[in-house]
Amino acid sequence: MALFSSLTPVFVAVLCVIIGFIIKNSQKKDESRSKEKRSDGGKVRPWVDEDLQDDTEINSKDNEDDYECLETEDENNLHHIPYTPHQYSASEILERSEKFYSLMNLRRSVRFISPEPVPREVINNVILTAGTAPSGAHTEPWTFVVVTDADVKHKIREIVEEEEEINYKQRMGDKWVHDLKRLRTNWVKEYLDIAPYLILIFKQIHGVHPNGKKKTHYYNEISVSIACGILLAALQNVGLVTVTTTPLNCGPQLRALLQRPANEKLLMLLPVGYPTSDATVPDLKRKDLNDIMVNV
Amino acid sequence: MALFSSLTPVFVAVLCVIIGFIIKNSQKKDESRSKEKRSDGGKVRPWVDEDLQDDTEINSKDNEDDYECLETEDENNLHHIPYTPHQYSASEILERSEKFYSLMNLRRSVRFISPEPVPREVINNVILTAGTAPSGAHTEPWTFVVVTDADVKHKIREIVEEEEEINYKQRMGDKWVHDLKRLRTNWVKEYLDIAPYLILIFKQIHGVHPNGKKKTHYYNEISVSIACGILLAALQNVGLVTVTTTPLNCGPQLRALLQRPANEKLLMLLPVGYPTSDATVPDLKRKDLNDIMVNV
Repeated sequence: MALFSSLTPVFVAVLCVIIGFIIKNSQKKDESRSKEKRSDGGKVRPWVDEDLQDDTEINSKDNEDDYECLETEDENNLHHIPYTPHQYSASEILERSEKFYSLMNLRRSVRFISPEPVPREVINNVILTAGTAPSGAHTEPWTFVVVTDADVKHKIREIVEEEEEINYKQRMGDKWVHDLKRLRTNWVKEYLDIAPYLILIFKQIHGVHPNGKKKTHYYNEISVSIACGILLAALQNVGLVTVTTTPLNCGPQLRALLQRPANEKLLMLLPVGYPTSDATVPDLKRKDLNDIMVNV
Repeated sequence: MALFSSLTPVFVAVLCVIIGFIIKNSQKKDESRSKEKRSDGGKVRPWVDEDLQDDTEINSKDNEDDYECLETEDENNLHHIPYTPHQYSASEILERSEKFYSLMNLRRSVRFISPEPVPREVINNVILTAGTAPSGAHTEPWTFVVVTDADVKHKIREIVEEEEEINYKQRMGDKWVHDLKRLRTNWVKEYLDIAPYLILIFKQIHGVHPNGKKKTHYYNEISVSIACGILLAALQNVGLVTVTTTPLNCGPQLRALLQRPANEKLLMLLPVGYPTSDATVPDLKRKDLNDIMVNV
């Protein structure tokens, strides 16, 4: 035992060296792994002009095994056709640009939505319009879920308001605490019950080929957001109002409620209808042209 | 030495146990760390209906030290004003929704852009229109850089085509290889020289308060993408064409060339002009309404 105890310091030293080596190694591995991911992410992404890529993690193994790039072949098989749109005169083009700006500049996010019914064909048309957006390799990675069922609308409201309560309690005490009055304003969301339509926009983070292989949806979030921009323009064009909401942490529950597949993730929730006669909006101003535009 | 060697198996056993313990522990730590991150990400994000949050990493420490949430106070100080937009009749609203859909449905991504000059006021108006988009807590996190200088346009083309070559060589041999014909099509981008305007859209990943503190820009990428959707609608409304491009890996070089600050990141590059008289587009079809809409 005397010899044992006298040897102990040696073993301790050995242990320290080995342990240090192990830890250092595991760190190195993590670093190189994340580096690989990045460079792979670059490699596997082709340039396609319309190709809007996103941060969706697609590690190279997943890519090799599960993904196929059929859309490319499809595009190669397409023949090209002449594109000769109507060209407006210099005065027409200027007038049209001013008119459209004036119309869009009247758009506001409105939380006071009337239960007054809206023709269903109009909702179909604004969604068709959103569907004209460009998308990565023309993957059209969007699903528009239109909710009119009162029970489902109420369940959506319950999910959103419950999450609100959690967010509220979690945030108490940190920099993000708003004054109670403002929080109450956001706390109760009657419009989720009252609006004749709730449009929930899902991004398809990947598609599925007929042969079951995954189809990469580059930049699906940006593509679907662009479609939402066109959707907002289409709603404003017909005098309907909405408020652009991203229900914080509600995505999985709402996806389950609406029985959307796992490759779809909630991007936005838009309550849609006419504004109430007593609707109000905060008196916000927009930046001047010189604050958003730079000339080179 | 006999005793030492006879003890060795014991030390080996001890070592194995300790090493196993260390590895298991370090893994646990990593897991819990990533979990914390997520919940923090939730905590520091307030619900604001217009608040479009994004994946921009804002760790809580950074948040505590560098960020201030002044926009909230600003909003609280705002008084609310009545919002009473024009309401169209049932026939008007239906007709307007059909007309706007027909107009937007004619939009295509066009790579054949004419050098024919376009009135500058029109470009200003479409950018003003894009600036009417909703944004996280009304942060308006966008910068539209309009390039008309021939030298700068050519430098942009050189940067984009050079990156193209790198992308091309990196991709050789993997699933993403396109047939040469198609690659050549994308290889040379004359339109970057020829188009009368190049609009480069930057997202501001954070703002800066007068006191130098950072201003959080939630969901800046989604907000700016929505603005781009409205921009595309505004261009289509006046008969101008573009192609939605995301210059792969060119962001930093183009940001440097255009001398944009570090808090701005390139989101899109849009060459804008009239189409050439012999412009063609691939004969793509769009999904049917039933393939993009779900009714609940």
